[in-house]
Amino acid sequence: MEKIRRNERMSAMMKILSDSPNQLFTLSSFCDRFSTAKSTMSEDIDILRGVAETFGLGEIKTITGAAGGVMYRTKIPPEQAAAYISELSNELSGTDRILPGGFLYLSDILSHPVITKRMGEIIASAFYDTAPDFVLTMETKGIPVALTTAGALGVPLVIARHSSKVYEGSAVNINYVSGSSGSIQTMSLSRRAVQEGQTCLIVDDFLKGGGTAKGMEDLMREFSIQVVGEAFVMETATPTHKRITGEKSLMVLDIQHLDDDTETAFVSPAPWLTENL
Amino acid sequence: MEKIRRNERMSAMMKILSDSPNQLFTLSSFCDRFSTAKSTMSEDIDILRGVAETFGLGEIKTITGAAGGVMYRTKIPPEQAAAYISELSNELSGTDRILPGGFLYLSDILSHPVITKRMGEIIASAFYDTAPDFVLTMETKGIPVALTTAGALGVPLVIARHSSKVYEGSAVNINYVSGSSGSIQTMSLSRRAVQEGQTCLIVDDFLKGGGTAKGMEDLMREFSIQVVGEAFVMETATPTHKRITGEKSLMVLDIQHLDDDTETAFVSPAPWLTENL
Repeated sequence: MEKIRRNERMSAMMKILSDSPNQLFTLSSFCDRFSTAKSTMSEDIDILRGVAETFGLGEIKTITGAAGGVMYRTKIPPEQAAAYISELSNELSGTDRILPGGFLYLSDILSHPVITKRMGEIIASAFYDTAPDFVLTMETKGIPVALTTAGALGVPLVIARHSSKVYEGSAVNINYVSGSSGSIQTMSLSRRAVQEGQTCLIVDDFLKGGGTAKGMEDLMREFSIQVVGEAFVMETATPTHKRITGEKSLMVLDIQHLDDDTETAFVSPAPWLTENL
Repeated sequence: MEKIRRNERMSAMMKILSDSPNQLFTLSSFCDRFSTAKSTMSEDIDILRGVAETFGLGEIKTITGAAGGVMYRTKIPPEQAAAYISELSNELSGTDRILPGGFLYLSDILSHPVITKRMGEIIASAFYDTAPDFVLTMETKGIPVALTTAGALGVPLVIARHSSKVYEGSAVNINYVSGSSGSIQTMSLSRRAVQEGQTCLIVDDFLKGGGTAKGMEDLMREFSIQVVGEAFVMETATPTHKRITGEKSLMVLDIQHLDDDTETAFVSPAPWLTENL
């Protein structure tokens, strides 16, 4: 095998590391793969760390000691996150996306690979420190952003269903009160999907009254799983009192009825994204 | 600004390109970003192409001419794809995942960020040439792998629903016959989600009789959209006659009843994955 040059080695390492966010690679695994001395590899990683920082491409994190190594995290700098969500908020504001009944059309955004990847990275950036064992979402619309969040955190995604399905095996069902409609609904999760004592991050598309989110909290309690955080793509400005607290949403939606009997959507980045800038 | 070294520039470019698969970047956009001459940039890209090839990290593709540039594709070499799916097939085979009624537990696989990313890349590799405008799936279990496929192809994902929802706006509903149960079901798609004259790739988790897939074909016909291909994570060995033809599945499932009245799953890579090796 020809000798691998530093520029080749570093390009490959950047790709390998960023393909597996939040996963620790030992230095020796890279030394073996590229037939390189540890000292050279340490230099490579130092340069890579600088590259990621300079060009805003995430974070290369080194962990020292016997169980140490190097990992990639998709950490989005706060200014970048705020700018991205501001731009998205502007796109979603106005009258174009208003649907009859005062709903906002979001399906294209919520299933777009690039947009959901970015949103997932921004959510993950805010929850790396909580180190959840998995991400939980409730079907259907939040699945893409929950998947990208789980991907950035390097953990599995678990999907709760509206009812138990034959292809999920034995399941735990709970009833919950929908915050917005007040109706009683069911939420179901396969027993095989999770284990007692784990921790989870709840990620979903929309928070209004908080009934579904509260249902997910109750469901996790049934499994003796601790919820370490909750994140939503969008929450409504009203009701101001939700059934849950402490959530991090990306955007806040306020649909206002104007004098001429039309409706306009005002979407803005959630306060936590901009308050420390 | 300090001069950017080749190893730094190449590492950053590898990350930027692979973050946006199948998207063309002009050479001049990179030249501007890194303050580099075109000739140097061309050399960088030549080296990057070699790196991707040598380490099996996808494909760096150069397009010459006025509208030219460089792009990254997550092309998985056929041997790698076959090996990955073989290993996955082995994991899924046996009795552990058998559920009452002859179903196989797949939910963990179908929502795992790393596994669905790899499966999506393998599917995308087989359909780059068809250049679909979007990927279509039917809720719920196929959403993650449809999202990763769409991501690798650099196109949006569109999700058909079981019924029309208030937050999707006006929709086209069709009825279809479920291939396995023979029951009549509804499939719904928002009018805003797609445009007449587009092309689409259908991606879903499971193909048994083909009723749902046929329904998706019918739905696309209602919108005057051409289906350029269909891919599934798993198809059943029986019935051998499906309502659709020409699909590419990753795995074939055969659940057999053994003499001792137990059931075992035999999962194998689909023939198209291995026939040209």
